[in-house]
Amino acid sequence: MQIINEAASALDDALRGITLTYPQLHQVPGTRAVFDSRFQDDTVPLIGGGGSGHDPAHWGYVGDGMLTAAVMGPMFTPPTAADIVATVKAATKQKRAFFIVKNFQSDVASFGAAASSLRSEGYDIGTCVVADDISVDTGSLIPRRRGVAGTVLVHKILGAAARRGANIAELRMLAAELMPEIKTIGFSFSGARMPGHDDYSFELPPNAVACGVGIHGEPGYRIEPYTSSELLARELLGKIRQSFHWHPGDPLAVFINSLGGTAVMEQMIFASDVQQLLQLEPVAIQWRKVGTFLTSSGMHGLSLSILRLSDPKWLDALQAEVHVAAWMN
Amino acid sequence: MQIINEAASALDDALRGITLTYPQLHQVPGTRAVFDSRFQDDTVPLIGGGGSGHDPAHWGYVGDGMLTAAVMGPMFTPPTAADIVATVKAATKQKRAFFIVKNFQSDVASFGAAASSLRSEGYDIGTCVVADDISVDTGSLIPRRRGVAGTVLVHKILGAAARRGANIAELRMLAAELMPEIKTIGFSFSGARMPGHDDYSFELPPNAVACGVGIHGEPGYRIEPYTSSELLARELLGKIRQSFHWHPGDPLAVFINSLGGTAVMEQMIFASDVQQLLQLEPVAIQWRKVGTFLTSSGMHGLSLSILRLSDPKWLDALQAEVHVAAWMN
Repeated sequence: MQIINEAASALDDALRGITLTYPQLHQVPGTRAVFDSRFQDDTVPLIGGGGSGHDPAHWGYVGDGMLTAAVMGPMFTPPTAADIVATVKAATKQKRAFFIVKNFQSDVASFGAAASSLRSEGYDIGTCVVADDISVDTGSLIPRRRGVAGTVLVHKILGAAARRGANIAELRMLAAELMPEIKTIGFSFSGARMPGHDDYSFELPPNAVACGVGIHGEPGYRIEPYTSSELLARELLGKIRQSFHWHPGDPLAVFINSLGGTAVMEQMIFASDVQQLLQLEPVAIQWRKVGTFLTSSGMHGLSLSILRLSDPKWLDALQAEVHVAAWMN
Repeated sequence: MQIINEAASALDDALRGITLTYPQLHQVPGTRAVFDSRFQDDTVPLIGGGGSGHDPAHWGYVGDGMLTAAVMGPMFTPPTAADIVATVKAATKQKRAFFIVKNFQSDVASFGAAASSLRSEGYDIGTCVVADDISVDTGSLIPRRRGVAGTVLVHKILGAAARRGANIAELRMLAAELMPEIKTIGFSFSGARMPGHDDYSFELPPNAVACGVGIHGEPGYRIEPYTSSELLARELLGKIRQSFHWHPGDPLAVFINSLGGTAVMEQMIFASDVQQLLQLEPVAIQWRKVGTFLTSSGMHGLSLSILRLSDPKWLDALQAEVHVAAWMN
């Protein structure tokens, strides 16, 4: 059971709730995009988005210091290039924008086509592709490199830079420095649920957990017996450590994200286990945030992102105050 | 399945996660209380709390401009008077405090005994009891008048007054003015879950919803067939309207709270329905907030609170910036 009216109108009904609750967010007519009506248009606008089903992503990050607009498509399906073009034109009159795109083939295609189209009209468009997921494909063991929760950290750090007046070349350089330093991996006890459907995209046997799940209900790299939060924290940190090669004293940011169906108590127990394990490592936790940021439509699970704060300005950017729906200062 | 280690240690493990994630929150030794280590002790400290199981209440509201300390007890069981006394002594050296208590017999007893004990030591203690729930007892049809999600609004408005330097008498008067203007009612599809238990405190037949549920898994005043978010919004608004007697032009604050197991999409659809229905009334929505504020341990449901903003200063207080874990500015 879900608190909806009709499955077919659920996304549009929710979007109406969003714009009524946050009147500074204006819907772009004919799309599921919202833009910041308070944007002064004197800095480079950041545009994010992707499929719906990831609430509070991406609309929850629209506001001064993060995104200027977020373009949502249907459930787990990116917006069309035309929607993205319309959003850019609604958000800015300055013929420039910077896109933050999650590394899924269809997302990259839509945002890429929109960038081409806008460039042909004389726009200056920068793009970065977030590929923070370190999970591997079950069959080939090839890294999937999807864009997942780390995308929210990219919104925040690029958002702070854009607000300070960074130009598109500077944003592109910052993104290039940032991307290799963000690693994310998740687990869950269930798949995702589509609006109006009570079944999940996958179901596990009792006491089993799927490691390396995606944000569209993808099953992950391994299903294993579930024993405790602490062992999951060890598993995920182990995978991140393998891909990172920490140096003594490395300053880290820790970002723990509910995939949608996870209680705050569970989030906090996992946060305790992760932080206690990291205290045994030769690293310094300089920043941490725990909550519901980029979900997989009600999935009961969590993702862990670690960002190595190679540049002290990134910490300032994470700490900078913003006024958006889904980021607590 | 839950992301915990052992059921017996779940609350303490979560509290460790809370203090590691929010290092400004210091645990009061021997209790499940936290206080704001940055508190300057030059204003009246506000003390809230109650049973555990309501995350992010009440620890999520500790910080400048809201609570100075939050005292949590075991699951759905208030802290002891001794815990409350210890918390006051840890939070302040000024021999004064103001308690915000939810209207449950055992909560009122614990905080009352703590107040008596502290007064006998020369403390000046003010108290207010929040009784915003307009649900009725199923058998007697007598109003329950429990303290529920509206308590968070009391934290915020009294918190702003305390930060501005209100004394205990002024806080007491403000609370007395505020209380009759806050009405809350909730619904859910399930009861609450205790840590380590997969069963719920009550289960409903498919396509049934319980109206008037409490925040401890109490079943509510009526179980009825579930049809849509909009009809639930009508039912709850109808109940609130009966108890309010709105006047044309009344300025309202709307506060929609997930009881723990409710997706953001569902929250936003219900928020849309409530706000659209209210637009048909002769009232003015001046403020709204939607999110997860005071939960009932994973219950799949929502509560709706309406606060009539009889004093314009209350709106300023709701809008005042704070830095706490669970309130977005």
